[in-house]
Amino acid sequence: MTDMKEKLHFACDYARGAHPDILQRMLETNGMKTAGYGLDEISESARKRIREACGCEAAAVEFLVGGTQTNAVMIDALLKSYQGVIAAETGHISVHEAGAIEFGGHKVLVLPHRFGKISANSVENYLKEYYNDANREHMVMPGMLYLSHPTEYGTLYSKEELQAFRSVCDRYEICLYVDGARLAYALACTENDVTLKDLAQLCDAFYIGGTKCGALFGEAAVVPDPGKIPHLFTIIKQHGALLAKGRLLGIQFDELFRNERYMRIGEPAIRAAERIRCALRERGYRLHFASPTNQIFCVMENDALDQLGEKVEYGFWEKFDDDHTVTRFATDWATTEDETKALIDVL
Amino acid sequence: MTDMKEKLHFACDYARGAHPDILQRMLETNGMKTAGYGLDEISESARKRIREACGCEAAAVEFLVGGTQTNAVMIDALLKSYQGVIAAETGHISVHEAGAIEFGGHKVLVLPHRFGKISANSVENYLKEYYNDANREHMVMPGMLYLSHPTEYGTLYSKEELQAFRSVCDRYEICLYVDGARLAYALACTENDVTLKDLAQLCDAFYIGGTKCGALFGEAAVVPDPGKIPHLFTIIKQHGALLAKGRLLGIQFDELFRNERYMRIGEPAIRAAERIRCALRERGYRLHFASPTNQIFCVMENDALDQLGEKVEYGFWEKFDDDHTVTRFATDWATTEDETKALIDVL
Amino acid sequence: MTDMKEKLHFACDYARGAHPDILQRMLETNGMKTAGYGLDEISESARKRIREACGCEAAAVEFLVGGTQTNAVMIDALLKSYQGVIAAETGHISVHEAGAIEFGGHKVLVLPHRFGKISANSVENYLKEYYNDANREHMVMPGMLYLSHPTEYGTLYSKEELQAFRSVCDRYEICLYVDGARLAYALACTENDVTLKDLAQLCDAFYIGGTKCGALFGEAAVVPDPGKIPHLFTIIKQHGALLAKGRLLGIQFDELFRNERYMRIGEPAIRAAERIRCALRERGYRLHFASPTNQIFCVMENDALDQLGEKVEYGFWEKFDDDHTVTRFATDWATTEDETKALIDVL
Amino acid sequence: MTDMKEKLHFACDYARGAHPDILQRMLETNGMKTAGYGLDEISESARKRIREACGCEAAAVEFLVGGTQTNAVMIDALLKSYQGVIAAETGHISVHEAGAIEFGGHKVLVLPHRFGKISANSVENYLKEYYNDANREHMVMPGMLYLSHPTEYGTLYSKEELQAFRSVCDRYEICLYVDGARLAYALACTENDVTLKDLAQLCDAFYIGGTKCGALFGEAAVVPDPGKIPHLFTIIKQHGALLAKGRLLGIQFDELFRNERYMRIGEPAIRAAERIRCALRERGYRLHFASPTNQIFCVMENDALDQLGEKVEYGFWEKFDDDHTVTRFATDWATTEDETKALIDVL
Repeated sequence: MTDMKEKLHFACDYARGAHPDILQRMLETNGMKTAGYGLDEISESARKRIREACGCEAAAVEFLVGGTQTNAVMIDALLKSYQGVIAAETGHISVHEAGAIEFGGHKVLVLPHRFGKISANSVENYLKEYYNDANREHMVMPGMLYLSHPTEYGTLYSKEELQAFRSVCDRYEICLYVDGARLAYALACTENDVTLKDLAQLCDAFYIGGTKCGALFGEAAVVPDPGKIPHLFTIIKQHGALLAKGRLLGIQFDELFRNERYMRIGEPAIRAAERIRCALRERGYRLHFASPTNQIFCVMENDALDQLGEKVEYGFWEKFDDDHTVTRFATDWATTEDETKALIDVL
Repeated sequence: MTDMKEKLHFACDYARGAHPDILQRMLETNGMKTAGYGLDEISESARKRIREACGCEAAAVEFLVGGTQTNAVMIDALLKSYQGVIAAETGHISVHEAGAIEFGGHKVLVLPHRFGKISANSVENYLKEYYNDANREHMVMPGMLYLSHPTEYGTLYSKEELQAFRSVCDRYEICLYVDGARLAYALACTENDVTLKDLAQLCDAFYIGGTKCGALFGEAAVVPDPGKIPHLFTIIKQHGALLAKGRLLGIQFDELFRNERYMRIGEPAIRAAERIRCALRERGYRLHFASPTNQIFCVMENDALDQLGEKVEYGFWEKFDDDHTVTRFATDWATTEDETKALIDVL
Repeated sequence: MTDMKEKLHFACDYARGAHPDILQRMLETNGMKTAGYGLDEISESARKRIREACGCEAAAVEFLVGGTQTNAVMIDALLKSYQGVIAAETGHISVHEAGAIEFGGHKVLVLPHRFGKISANSVENYLKEYYNDANREHMVMPGMLYLSHPTEYGTLYSKEELQAFRSVCDRYEICLYVDGARLAYALACTENDVTLKDLAQLCDAFYIGGTKCGALFGEAAVVPDPGKIPHLFTIIKQHGALLAKGRLLGIQFDELFRNERYMRIGEPAIRAAERIRCALRERGYRLHFASPTNQIFCVMENDALDQLGEKVEYGFWEKFDDDHTVTRFATDWATTEDETKALIDVL
Repeated sequence: MTDMKEKLHFACDYARGAHPDILQRMLETNGMKTAGYGLDEISESARKRIREACGCEAAAVEFLVGGTQTNAVMIDALLKSYQGVIAAETGHISVHEAGAIEFGGHKVLVLPHRFGKISANSVENYLKEYYNDANREHMVMPGMLYLSHPTEYGTLYSKEELQAFRSVCDRYEICLYVDGARLAYALACTENDVTLKDLAQLCDAFYIGGTKCGALFGEAAVVPDPGKIPHLFTIIKQHGALLAKGRLLGIQFDELFRNERYMRIGEPAIRAAERIRCALRERGYRLHFASPTNQIFCVMENDALDQLGEKVEYGFWEKFDDDHTVTRFATDWATTEDETKALIDVL
């Protein structure tokens, strides 16, 4: 219930509004009367730009409002009614979606993670064990692999890792789906070698995050081969996820993909995060693990946290030991050099 | 896929953007960093204004994105897992929500309608028959009555009718829920004698429509006695219906309820609809039935429709007979006198 | 809570145990240790006999415990997650399954009936209207036609009618599923011209009722082309419908189909029903409609019912008018001539 | 697809039929015509006996067909729609029910186990963490603790442990539910100090297993305070779990609880298991862990397994190391001294 204007805010990456060009476009188009449900020409233009950026003319692109909603819709759309989805135990769908996947009747089948990541090997072992289990028909059949890129820990998969996942998925005939809630922060990161085109080639479906990446709200679900999900429009409606004035989503993605802006929009966040990580290291703090994107995980003494909390909104990640806590700082597409400097000054 | 700027648009009431004050407020607040998920101070201000307008200090007010979503969430939240919801066969949940209620496991129990309305009597008979049926434990137990006000046909319930529904609901211990997708158009209508305060007194829950009533998107669900739905926040999240930047909804309803604007925002639509109805009658058209709000249902000769369609976007409602069609014209909060005149000129 | 041994019992067709040969076989096999879940040799023998009776070597045959369960499993297995099932408004799934179909997320799309039957024409009109509706993607997509044979009113479809349904289903690419809870009573009836082989040729799936037709419990679901439902075993388990000692179902159907007994087992019921109908007509009662199978629907004066009820358990069907009631008498595979005579004597 | 009459069968405890007295009673009652759905006098007698054995006159007792079905029904009946159920990661609902709990919309929240058991401490920590988590409203709310007694590993909870669980459940206001699929084997075991009366005092609901404990099929769900689950009958029907000829379940439990037979029916299994464990130890085999009930887990050399498999049906439990396998032998209520001796002779 707090407005945080008095404090520095590094608690999350969805605390402000949208890129100014998006608001400008909303103003300009406000009086227009267009068809509803995303059947308007602005949405169509956005779809076209996304298809181009993905190098996939045939792709179905549907705009949804938020991440949990998109995951719930797309996973339900891709799975058979009796199948479950494999995910890291730290995956967003495993923990922080209040059971939205199970609400659709599907079990989340969890694998142990290392800083948010799982390996193609562990997925393959899971599938191998399942298919070797004489009782497998009494178990939930895995029908999909869910990955997030970047992960919830800000870590990244390499293209090679994704190819290995794809290869496992092919061998066991399951779908590959990537949650790109923070995809812009991967794309803006030098460590990242995974492009939108790669995702379109490797995934059965994925989504390009808007809410955390410059939009007011909205995610663009991409299905490179639309034949894999007939009647996606109806499924979206069935999930209560169809926006009446669909052009509002179209506007946002049309702006995010104008001149391929999405590829660069995360850069300020990455630069800020890098400066903060350097400062933390210089001041002798221990980074919990290497996270190259817009989230910084730092081990801090509990005694220092109250004081820090008076000046900065930050995230509690987890207990490290009795005396230390892992804190999370998140930058975003609009983090300024001044904000970054101010944070560094109080660290 | 069409932009309708070239034609007059009376096909629906969700074709344009938002009231300019809403966009202005979005611009002003765009750089603010606030807590997510509706826990910010703007959302809180909006809640306060709605509670005041409803004369119900204790009410829970939650903001959701769209109508189908709000119905799916609130109906699932109020019903027991084995209960169904009674509705007119023409109710939005019965027909045009792609099975969103059934997706949550609940059957919609339909009653015959008259121009979108049902009667307390028919509800009572349904309940009486259910409780007299020796096999009722093999049937879906009715747990709620769903009404829309205005109905999908633009018709209105009187306060007396709502009181009669409430009385039946009390006798049979079921909930009363009102879908107010177009509520502003009831409130602006002289025939209407149902106030927000009445709804708050009579309903277990209802929602105040934003999407069709001046907002970009958004509906405000009101639960006069919050104890009736514990953990509504989690239920919203479970349905994929929680907006990360919840303040966007807060902003819209804070503006819609600033100086009780919502009570008046539908007036231009009502005036325009009245003028159109007069003009239709004068030109000898037959109105299909009396609908006092922002929708006009007119019986037109099929032969004339193509010509009309070149100049006006209108709605197909239903076949009247082999030579005639019932068309729907919808006005909205922003319909201008010029637009109205232009339509009248081509009729 | 009443044992009805003192009264004549014509209230339903599931009040006694099983054909003696079934109990005898259970005794003989009681000490055997066999594989669970229907993977035993007795179940396999039963499957073989059913496949032969259906003239369909390739069919998948799965044994389930009861009718509602079988409908819930098979309809969920055949439909896509966003599809609904068309049924008569009097269909068992529409009324008396406590929302089991909706529990699986599917809407039942009802059509008006005539004595339990619907017509291929009304199905076609429903589908045509759906596909002509510009808003159909906001509606539940019909994915299946559910019929019961005999219907809940004891009426029968002709082979020609079933062929017409199949033809509509083919044109609109939906499945055809037949609920054969009382199928033995159709097969034993001279008016019936639909064979098991016909059902296997015309349906995507159907079930052969055991519970009401000589078994203790159990229904045999037949899928002529098993490729239409991959992983049916897992779907059955997911629905909590897999019987651990599956051979119990195998035993029952192996006996029911030994020497094609199932084709004849309903004959005593049909003979008894015919005698009762004659007696009713002779005594001047009005039969509500022609029902050629094991259910008799008779219009009786309310004043006479109390007296009748002292001697006979019968079923209340519906109110006819203020002074009359439609009663139902059901015979079964074991109804004796003595029982029939005793009933006739008290009518 | 194999009949195992040629081999010794110790692979599971549901391979044969029922206690002869049950079959005898089925024969005797076969011609009776009784009310359906468990509303008959035999079912009522069985309920009365179970209530007496549980020392709980007020308890609701409902008979269901199988274990997965009973778990799915009772867990769905006790949980709110947005709640999940805490269970050991080895719990039957976690692994071997093909997602039946998720089919009802509920997540299974798993805890690490030790030989099938979890501790009140770990449950308390889970709940404490949940309630301390600032994001808990984005997570699945735990609403119930699921235990099995004996566990899937044949291990037992002590009365003291159950009391500790109850105490945690009380503090955090969640339900306690016990899966007693093999309860007879606990009750027959000297190590066990948990009685039916204890379960009735400590649990919100539990079920008394029949399928594995002398019945053909069937489980008796007990709700000590029936007010906790209104409309359980309808919920059972909604799940497709209502047996038409409910008396078949009544008969079985009436016989199982005649003269409190159920308390002793597991004794032959326990005696046999104890003899087998002794023999294994004598022959130098390593028991994987101490399991005092009817399941024996033995570490065996892979090389020896093929030979053993020619003579004995046994269960594969898990890989122990590259050269060894954990095998499971299960005895049952009808295991004879001859069968036991024969097994020992081939070990």
